[in-house]
Amino acid sequence: MPSARHFTLRFSCPDRVGIVARVATFLAEAGGSILRSSQHSDSATDRFYMRVEVDAASLGISLETLAARFTPIAEELEMDWRVADSAVKKRIVVLVSRQMHCLYDLLERWRSGELDVDIPCIISNHDDARGLVEWHGIEFHHVPVNKDNKAAAWRKIDRLFAAADADTMVLARYMQILPPWLCEAHAGQILNIHHSFLPSFVGASPYQQAWERGVKQVGATCHYVTPELDQGPIIEQDVTRVTHNDAVRDLVRYGKDIEKAVLARGLRYHLEDRVLISGRRTVVL
Amino acid sequence: MPSARHFTLRFSCPDRVGIVARVATFLAEAGGSILRSSQHSDSATDRFYMRVEVDAASLGISLETLAARFTPIAEELEMDWRVADSAVKKRIVVLVSRQMHCLYDLLERWRSGELDVDIPCIISNHDDARGLVEWHGIEFHHVPVNKDNKAAAWRKIDRLFAAADADTMVLARYMQILPPWLCEAHAGQILNIHHSFLPSFVGASPYQQAWERGVKQVGATCHYVTPELDQGPIIEQDVTRVTHNDAVRDLVRYGKDIEKAVLARGLRYHLEDRVLISGRRTVVL
Amino acid sequence: MPSARHFTLRFSCPDRVGIVARVATFLAEAGGSILRSSQHSDSATDRFYMRVEVDAASLGISLETLAARFTPIAEELEMDWRVADSAVKKRIVVLVSRQMHCLYDLLERWRSGELDVDIPCIISNHDDARGLVEWHGIEFHHVPVNKDNKAAAWRKIDRLFAAADADTMVLARYMQILPPWLCEAHAGQILNIHHSFLPSFVGASPYQQAWERGVKQVGATCHYVTPELDQGPIIEQDVTRVTHNDAVRDLVRYGKDIEKAVLARGLRYHLEDRVLISGRRTVVL
Amino acid sequence: MPSARHFTLRFSCPDRVGIVARVATFLAEAGGSILRSSQHSDSATDRFYMRVEVDAASLGISLETLAARFTPIAEELEMDWRVADSAVKKRIVVLVSRQMHCLYDLLERWRSGELDVDIPCIISNHDDARGLVEWHGIEFHHVPVNKDNKAAAWRKIDRLFAAADADTMVLARYMQILPPWLCEAHAGQILNIHHSFLPSFVGASPYQQAWERGVKQVGATCHYVTPELDQGPIIEQDVTRVTHNDAVRDLVRYGKDIEKAVLARGLRYHLEDRVLISGRRTVVL
Repeated sequence: MPSARHFTLRFSCPDRVGIVARVATFLAEAGGSILRSSQHSDSATDRFYMRVEVDAASLGISLETLAARFTPIAEELEMDWRVADSAVKKRIVVLVSRQMHCLYDLLERWRSGELDVDIPCIISNHDDARGLVEWHGIEFHHVPVNKDNKAAAWRKIDRLFAAADADTMVLARYMQILPPWLCEAHAGQILNIHHSFLPSFVGASPYQQAWERGVKQVGATCHYVTPELDQGPIIEQDVTRVTHNDAVRDLVRYGKDIEKAVLARGLRYHLEDRVLISGRRTVVL
Repeated sequence: MPSARHFTLRFSCPDRVGIVARVATFLAEAGGSILRSSQHSDSATDRFYMRVEVDAASLGISLETLAARFTPIAEELEMDWRVADSAVKKRIVVLVSRQMHCLYDLLERWRSGELDVDIPCIISNHDDARGLVEWHGIEFHHVPVNKDNKAAAWRKIDRLFAAADADTMVLARYMQILPPWLCEAHAGQILNIHHSFLPSFVGASPYQQAWERGVKQVGATCHYVTPELDQGPIIEQDVTRVTHNDAVRDLVRYGKDIEKAVLARGLRYHLEDRVLISGRRTVVL
Repeated sequence: MPSARHFTLRFSCPDRVGIVARVATFLAEAGGSILRSSQHSDSATDRFYMRVEVDAASLGISLETLAARFTPIAEELEMDWRVADSAVKKRIVVLVSRQMHCLYDLLERWRSGELDVDIPCIISNHDDARGLVEWHGIEFHHVPVNKDNKAAAWRKIDRLFAAADADTMVLARYMQILPPWLCEAHAGQILNIHHSFLPSFVGASPYQQAWERGVKQVGATCHYVTPELDQGPIIEQDVTRVTHNDAVRDLVRYGKDIEKAVLARGLRYHLEDRVLISGRRTVVL
Repeated sequence: MPSARHFTLRFSCPDRVGIVARVATFLAEAGGSILRSSQHSDSATDRFYMRVEVDAASLGISLETLAARFTPIAEELEMDWRVADSAVKKRIVVLVSRQMHCLYDLLERWRSGELDVDIPCIISNHDDARGLVEWHGIEFHHVPVNKDNKAAAWRKIDRLFAAADADTMVLARYMQILPPWLCEAHAGQILNIHHSFLPSFVGASPYQQAWERGVKQVGATCHYVTPELDQGPIIEQDVTRVTHNDAVRDLVRYGKDIEKAVLARGLRYHLEDRVLISGRRTVVL
């Protein structure tokens, strides 16, 4: 049932005639059987985006050899590129606060194998999640954040992330605002789930804001974290219907289900190397 | 198949014990068979909202008699109230500009009997829709609007609306901003369909704004028109999924389907006396 | 934030003039402040359904006293009725097999207080879930089911359910078919989540069936269990979009999110005494 | 705003290494700039599907020349293939009965240019739609169908379709069942909108069936017509939420909006040569 081991090549580059021909011919000459391929020409920026999964067994060469042979093409076409091996698990560090619905959801996906990653550690500004996390055999770090120790806390989180040798940091309802330097140091690597349908209801208490405005649907947004609060490129969004009958606590409750699903989808797209950033937008191939 | 002739009573009043008992007992003593009833207590404002449909045949009295007998109760309970007879058609005036998807949609619903109203006239700042409207046997008024004649144009529209003896004005993708005095003169009577999921993307070119922000769903909002642009109480909203592959013109195209459906639903709720305004929010019973 | 303690009265009875008046007057005379009320007249069966939440503090009498005083009205109107006290937690027993996404989801809702019930025990035909369940401080029973011991297994489950003094049995992806006698013994008390949008794809492997038929959306259904497989009254349903690109394993994965959300919503409606059965249909007030 | 003139090449063929390379190289050598491309490998059937839009201006050759040069590749790779020129409008014939919501919807899309096709004629078994159709400048044929003249009616419709030189026949709520010979003569060319979420509620009165089963969502399905009733490959589906409060006539009304949207989307995919049939399934590229 699982998909075969594959190498994933993804890139973006200035658009021109013949890019697909070059890439596909390169792969065909290496014997590569294409499992899945998608591409996008963005006419607004005149840039081309592509992602292709190649059956590793069909190639008969290592990822390193493939990358070495592809480098001249990538340089000639001025690509921003990357290759990944599906047999090498990505590593994610999860940050949470007191609400645990996203954490439970991620842990179940991880334990069942749906989320096929390593989770070297989970960090929280509260100690509440320790028991659950450690029961799952995952290291837990309690890093309190208050107005006196913020700078030290962010440095500690950055060190833990580095020590974990992780690719991705997931803010799974982590209720602290990361400093600009941390966002910039890991641009394109930090995912957040915001509990509103952005750009509506930026900042604190979005469900309270939504109730006051009387909207008929509430939503959630998974986006990359950038130094500007809630302004990063959007990866995935969804909404659910509410009525005048629903109090703020009901909006919060409905919202939890959307947050879980949207974060899980956005994270999966990211981990499968399907998300390419294009300014304030994302291309999800 | 159509529902039986019924009288609809709706009101809001300060919340207290015994309101339902008073109203239901009044109706039962008149022999009234309740077809549908719904109510809402708003704890934020301590106000009670109720709507009840009574089988007209079961009552054996006229709407006027019913209203006269109900008046003392309404006054005692300090109600903001109204009764309507399903046998008396509501009258709507529709305003359009060049895009006709909402107009076609309303005309089909009207012609098939789904939208069971009279449409005394349709007004546009362009002449394009005249043929279609007149083919349907509906009066058409071309009222051009430009920066020199705006004041006169709004007065003319107001006179046409008054002459039509209409209850409701429907802005069916009418691309002009009504002046505050007109909005205030017909508060709670003018419905607009805005082509975004408010409060996102207020004002002009919402689909362009949505594309630039890279949202993954676009929507539409049916709301009452108030003097503040796109800030009126929301009656109905919906969204549809888009991807990076969709250009602004695709967003516009997907949006048209949402606009039609959301306007039709919001208008229906309004015409069935199901919408009660509560500050910036609506209660849709 | 939580709602005030309330008594919930729900009933169905033959439709006639004056039911709401009788019930509302009874409650008003007891000083009862109505927090939420909804009702439904079913013209196909000529039956009336009602549910009302009354603020317990406003009544100043016990649930027993309320019930005793209401009994004559209920008998006169030939009601099928029930009253419940929000301060008395419902008790649910959960049955699972190997897949744990619904179990994790229910446990998180229970632990966070969103699902405000007691869970005296969790039963499974496999031992896999024991650790997680016991970590949550909940009793776990491993009741293997195979073709030789089925009759004994069903009797054991029935005894465990009785010993747990539970109201509701939740089949949270329990992959065994309960025998007719067990379904009948607990009619209206057993909820199942079926992994298709019923009535499509009854029985085994619904995602495989869905893939073969090439549907463009897959869904899940929460329903009461009756002796006829997958034919019980539907409480809640939802769907999600799929494409030709999705293999059966992808449909399974998308489906998990729908199953969790639909089971949680259906169970909540049931526990709040909002679901009344009307033949093969449900009225969700 | 409209997209540039383009040639669309689509094909399916047995899967093997190097197909994309062959096709992309062929296009690149002709100077072809790829506007949009998508492909799909179906592992169940070991077949490969591809669709590519090439900027016509970048090629500098006619469609005929392109096709002639491509033929040897297509033959070698055993392709089932087609090329189309976006400047050549497709031709559709629409069949309707008494309900006109789909017809109004298609006419508005056609008149506004969103549906960029020629409509040589519209056929109905009733005369009701004549006025509207002729007002739009489209030829109308009234072809009554009753149990005595069915064979003659089908032959007449077949002749009208042939005379119209049309590519596609659209059953826009046409309430007659076409005979097998007509379905087979135009396999892959006849689209139907069925008013249920197939495979649920095949045949007559699906909304009545849906009400009786008590489903919580109703839907519509756009599919290719095959000799087996409602069994053809599904192109597009959608659903909308309903409640116990909705009578059959409400389900019908909600369903109309889904039918319009689903037919319009399915028809668009078909006309853009995005739909490839794969047994009972479709690949929508």
